Amino acid sequence: MRKTLASNSSIGAAPWKFLLLAATLLFSYALPAHADDHEEAASTEEAAAEPEAGPIDDYNGLLDHQGAGAPAFDFFTTSMLWTVIAAALVFLMHLGFATLESGLCQQKNVVNVLFKNVFIISIGIVTYAFFGFNTHYPADWIIADWFAWGGMIGDLNADGGDVWGEYANLGLAMTGFGDFIFQAMFAATGATIVSGAVAERVKLSAFMIFAVLFVGVAYPIAGSWHWGGGVLAGMGFKDFAGSTVVHAFGGFGALACVMVLKARKGKYTENGIKPIPAHSFPLAAIGVFLLMFGWYGFNGGSVLSADPTALGLVFTTTTLGATAGALGAIATSWFLLKKPDLSMALNGLLAGLVGITANADVIGVTSALMIGFIAGIIVVFSIISLDKVRIDDPVGAISVHGVCGIWGTVATAIFADGFDFMVQLQGAIYVSVFAFLFSYAVFYVLKMTIGVRVSEEEEERGLDISEHGQEAYGS
Amino acid sequence: MRKTLASNSSIGAAPWKFLLLAATLLFSYALPAHADDHEEAASTEEAAAEPEAGPIDDYNGLLDHQGAGAPAFDFFTTSMLWTVIAAALVFLMHLGFATLESGLCQQKNVVNVLFKNVFIISIGIVTYAFFGFNTHYPADWIIADWFAWGGMIGDLNADGGDVWGEYANLGLAMTGFGDFIFQAMFAATGATIVSGAVAERVKLSAFMIFAVLFVGVAYPIAGSWHWGGGVLAGMGFKDFAGSTVVHAFGGFGALACVMVLKARKGKYTENGIKPIPAHSFPLAAIGVFLLMFGWYGFNGGSVLSADPTALGLVFTTTTLGATAGALGAIATSWFLLKKPDLSMALNGLLAGLVGITANADVIGVTSALMIGFIAGIIVVFSIISLDKVRIDDPVGAISVHGVCGIWGTVATAIFADGFDFMVQLQGAIYVSVFAFLFSYAVFYVLKMTIGVRVSEEEEERGLDISEHGQEAYGS
Amino acid sequence: MRKTLASNSSIGAAPWKFLLLAATLLFSYALPAHADDHEEAASTEEAAAEPEAGPIDDYNGLLDHQGAGAPAFDFFTTSMLWTVIAAALVFLMHLGFATLESGLCQQKNVVNVLFKNVFIISIGIVTYAFFGFNTHYPADWIIADWFAWGGMIGDLNADGGDVWGEYANLGLAMTGFGDFIFQAMFAATGATIVSGAVAERVKLSAFMIFAVLFVGVAYPIAGSWHWGGGVLAGMGFKDFAGSTVVHAFGGFGALACVMVLKARKGKYTENGIKPIPAHSFPLAAIGVFLLMFGWYGFNGGSVLSADPTALGLVFTTTTLGATAGALGAIATSWFLLKKPDLSMALNGLLAGLVGITANADVIGVTSALMIGFIAGIIVVFSIISLDKVRIDDPVGAISVHGVCGIWGTVATAIFADGFDFMVQLQGAIYVSVFAFLFSYAVFYVLKMTIGVRVSEEEEERGLDISEHGQEAYGS
Repeated sequence: MRKTLASNSSIGAAPWKFLLLAATLLFSYALPAHADDHEEAASTEEAAAEPEAGPIDDYNGLLDHQGAGAPAFDFFTTSMLWTVIAAALVFLMHLGFATLESGLCQQKNVVNVLFKNVFIISIGIVTYAFFGFNTHYPADWIIADWFAWGGMIGDLNADGGDVWGEYANLGLAMTGFGDFIFQAMFAATGATIVSGAVAERVKLSAFMIFAVLFVGVAYPIAGSWHWGGGVLAGMGFKDFAGSTVVHAFGGFGALACVMVLKARKGKYTENGIKPIPAHSFPLAAIGVFLLMFGWYGFNGGSVLSADPTALGLVFTTTTLGATAGALGAIATSWFLLKKPDLSMALNGLLAGLVGITANADVIGVTSALMIGFIAGIIVVFSIISLDKVRIDDPVGAISVHGVCGIWGTVATAIFADGFDFMVQLQGAIYVSVFAFLFSYAVFYVLKMTIGVRVSEEEEERGLDISEHGQEAYGS
Repeated sequence: MRKTLASNSSIGAAPWKFLLLAATLLFSYALPAHADDHEEAASTEEAAAEPEAGPIDDYNGLLDHQGAGAPAFDFFTTSMLWTVIAAALVFLMHLGFATLESGLCQQKNVVNVLFKNVFIISIGIVTYAFFGFNTHYPADWIIADWFAWGGMIGDLNADGGDVWGEYANLGLAMTGFGDFIFQAMFAATGATIVSGAVAERVKLSAFMIFAVLFVGVAYPIAGSWHWGGGVLAGMGFKDFAGSTVVHAFGGFGALACVMVLKARKGKYTENGIKPIPAHSFPLAAIGVFLLMFGWYGFNGGSVLSADPTALGLVFTTTTLGATAGALGAIATSWFLLKKPDLSMALNGLLAGLVGITANADVIGVTSALMIGFIAGIIVVFSIISLDKVRIDDPVGAISVHGVCGIWGTVATAIFADGFDFMVQLQGAIYVSVFAFLFSYAVFYVLKMTIGVRVSEEEEERGLDISEHGQEAYGS
Repeated sequence: MRKTLASNSSIGAAPWKFLLLAATLLFSYALPAHADDHEEAASTEEAAAEPEAGPIDDYNGLLDHQGAGAPAFDFFTTSMLWTVIAAALVFLMHLGFATLESGLCQQKNVVNVLFKNVFIISIGIVTYAFFGFNTHYPADWIIADWFAWGGMIGDLNADGGDVWGEYANLGLAMTGFGDFIFQAMFAATGATIVSGAVAERVKLSAFMIFAVLFVGVAYPIAGSWHWGGGVLAGMGFKDFAGSTVVHAFGGFGALACVMVLKARKGKYTENGIKPIPAHSFPLAAIGVFLLMFGWYGFNGGSVLSADPTALGLVFTTTTLGATAGALGAIATSWFLLKKPDLSMALNGLLAGLVGITANADVIGVTSALMIGFIAGIIVVFSIISLDKVRIDDPVGAISVHGVCGIWGTVATAIFADGFDFMVQLQGAIYVSVFAFLFSYAVFYVLKMTIGVRVSEEEEERGLDISEHGQEAYGS
């Protein structure tokens, strides 16, 4: 993720401001599009900014020692190559989500889950081009450090693609299009996380409207607080690749939607909780492994360059966090459930990944193992606890992304030097509360108007037939 | 793809010449193999050639500003790394095709589809080594600009792998083996496209013979017209990564084969069209996402270097084209069919990708969105129309690759400056007609001799049992 | 793989020594952890060492011609980027194994196979961090050239990540963490190979204990003989990316376990061999294609740099070996079985990959085709023969990885100059015998104590229900 640029911040402003704004901005987003919104923001603020220390700066130090411009140019080329490869890896995470979510739900809802995933990545990319990117990295704030709104991207090669000169001031070793496409791949993730939690009973049209607003409007606003140089950046909040601004954001949006939507029919009965088993564990396992594969782009690409020191560390901590997470969840669930549970093992791997995402560039080997292992323990307890309070999340998205996203964010202060626990907690709460309130409001309005849930008969029959007239499996 | 080298062209020659040639060349391909065929071609023609302007040339300009040879060397290393990674990504497209095609067909024909895909990638690579590569990039023309025939590749590291010096004249930042392996991965694609269209009733042995000729003979010939410096190169035809020379080539080959083969039994009845549903939408969705993932190598690798300006643009336009295509197909099919159709959404994504493939390096953001969105509309109408005229294409390959391949080729002239609509159309027609006639002739001869279709009982029972004695799914 | 550092070797020591050691080292691995174990080893031995000639050295020659430190620095950055991307590709091979193995077994054992695969990659990575890496690349030998034991990795960025200076002497263009994570991804492979062979009847707890010892203890010891500068390095043994030290190691471990475990119930009857068909060929095909995709990281990453000459060659030979292997197996099995067999085609592709793994950097085009094609023939005969002698290997792992691993190792001496056939054979035997004896001993002890096999009723019912209380497929 972009290193943030500190500016005059107003930390005290309350999240509820954004709900009012969310309603009004829908009428105002036809701002004039110009190519250089993004770069202008950078150059305007750059003089006053004190960039956060990080690998890229150290690396620039190395470059300086070499003196000439030529190595910088080659370093830029290699870094930009990594950026686009990382973007492709993050794209593949959407296949991971699609297979994980469809694998964990029932056969009769598989087409619906897959359709939602194709739609989310598509609308996520397109809205990010139309207004997301320039909202995420604001040229001008409408409410300083809290709210901005940007227009469509233009020709991000307007400077001839020779953006090392300009972007170097941002600490970015990539062209404008490289920056856009890497960030665009992240944008749809939030809605995908919600998609899994509301699966098997949500009304397609309502979800599609929600997805447009959540991924197109709420995500870039929350992201601007941190990566756009807003309020969280001003606080010194650390969230390397997005434990909070991507994962907790999605997880708490999911929680709100599930609370408005209620549980699947027949899940919670007078006789207790009735498990609704996954229809295909191979699909779910494909999903989890692909997510981990794509996470190397998610975390590795967030180094924002090909800095070899940082890349080696981030790949190692990411891997150790994930595998320790799986072991933690295997041990915990075996102890609690008396059986080695595959879905817990898979969720543990993801929990470790989410936990390490905030801090993969600033911790060591032992800390990575501990953060991941604890995430693996947390996710099992969280899944079991949410089920007890009748929060019906078919894929465990709230626990994996929401709860472990917060864990990873605060773990940064525990395991790495130089980060404040309360700041980490505060930042995680700001984003999570915003995601929750935004989602609750939107979903509640949808419920009151077009409805957010299919009828009982449709749910019984399955969304594939009732919404799509198609079945996932044929003869 | 290789930037083409213009030479004395004979634009007027007719495609039917090649059918005669196709018959004779089968007796003549034991040409002496020598390592430097390819490079010799380059250096021979280079003096007279006026290379097409493109990213690589601009980039060489940048390099010149830096003066020293050292940066060129590092740029070469980074570019070559990208070339082999891109080759691996294109390889993965063959898994995408395998899963998409098997997902969209019936359970009883899945083993057959998968077997064909393993065979096609294998024979495609091996024939490309034996004669494809040196036919694709001719050292000498047998019929100037229209037909050449090459022997086996030799040691493409014969120059020590230090080919920057030689290849720089071609605008290629890769070694000989890098060039070979990237192009080899493309070669099998044409036959894979046909494989899906003829699925569920084609006779395996006949298809295997066809595949060898289509991928081993027809593909490198058609490709030589454009990337080998032949007739299309002389016309100023633009086809960045192969909307025409890969996708329309495969799509119109598929059309010919389907016309010879006829529809699946029971598909078109007196009472109308009987849909034959996909046996597994999760498999199909895996296929489409993997195809898009691999397309980053297909289009991105076609930059032929790690030029950061071009890479950022190509990744962005490719992504926008694909996602706009999905949205276009979702909207169109929802309007026409009154239901949000998953298979149309998936085909829309692919249609957008095919449409953007000819022009991803020369268009901007808005054009990419429009080309993709229109491709998504076109593909829905094309699939419905072909069904009405009883062209039975189980996977939609003719519409996705053939029709949208032509769309992308002519869209280049509409949306980008400097390209002639009639030249684009003419080039698309040359290749499509050749692919159609070649395939029709070969398939017709096969039909008259060994037969191209399994018996009615075998089709009923499924090709898995009748051809392979295996079933795709067991207990 | 690491170029080995020769030192005073004692080639005569017998493999059985290690079985005694294996028992004792379990009590001794709490060695003090320090960051620099690895680097110290390098600098200590470096003066006396005569590094094996290879691509990296040639490339260093090129670098020298350029004079300045700057290109070396950029080359280091590009190489390190390739190392971590290659590590991610090798990670994806574990999804390949998971889907291949679960696809080839019966529905009732799929959860069990997937669980084992999640566990293996997790425990493999974690044990490699705890003691594997520093055992694999020993600082000090306990028994010279045969046995060492290392502690936990520390901060491998302790030198600031600027390890080009130190690692350049090792011929490594990567940081310490880059080296660790690439090697760590290999470590779990051995146990995964065994996992497939023992599927459908092995007791989960016994397998998990075995996996920890096989991947955590036996693998780094055998690996140290070659890549750690031990006995095989001293012999001049050539094994580029691990036909022997990864694949034959896993394959012969699998053979031992299957011999202790015996065949699946009902497989071999008085009336002959009863085939137990794959439950999902699409899953198996996904696995094989993903394995080949990941193999580009396995072999390509073993170049240990972004040397463009070597990368182009390795990608080409790897691809030709794999595809020729598929063609060899298709032809052979069609001739023997009278049907085009999909599972044989898939195993042929893998056999070609295993065969080329020892020599991909030192052979040419024709040799690659021949090594692969012969591997494809061998694997068919091996699978059929093992079935005849009632070695029940549900996935063909012993044939693909064990038999073809040895084939690839000795083929190196046949097809490439400068390697001794007897040395290659001797090296392959050392590792295979060690893997066999270690596995036999561990599995035998487990059999005598906790048992290695589920009960007949559990096997009948399936391991998913009996071990996990979960089913792979739901409604």
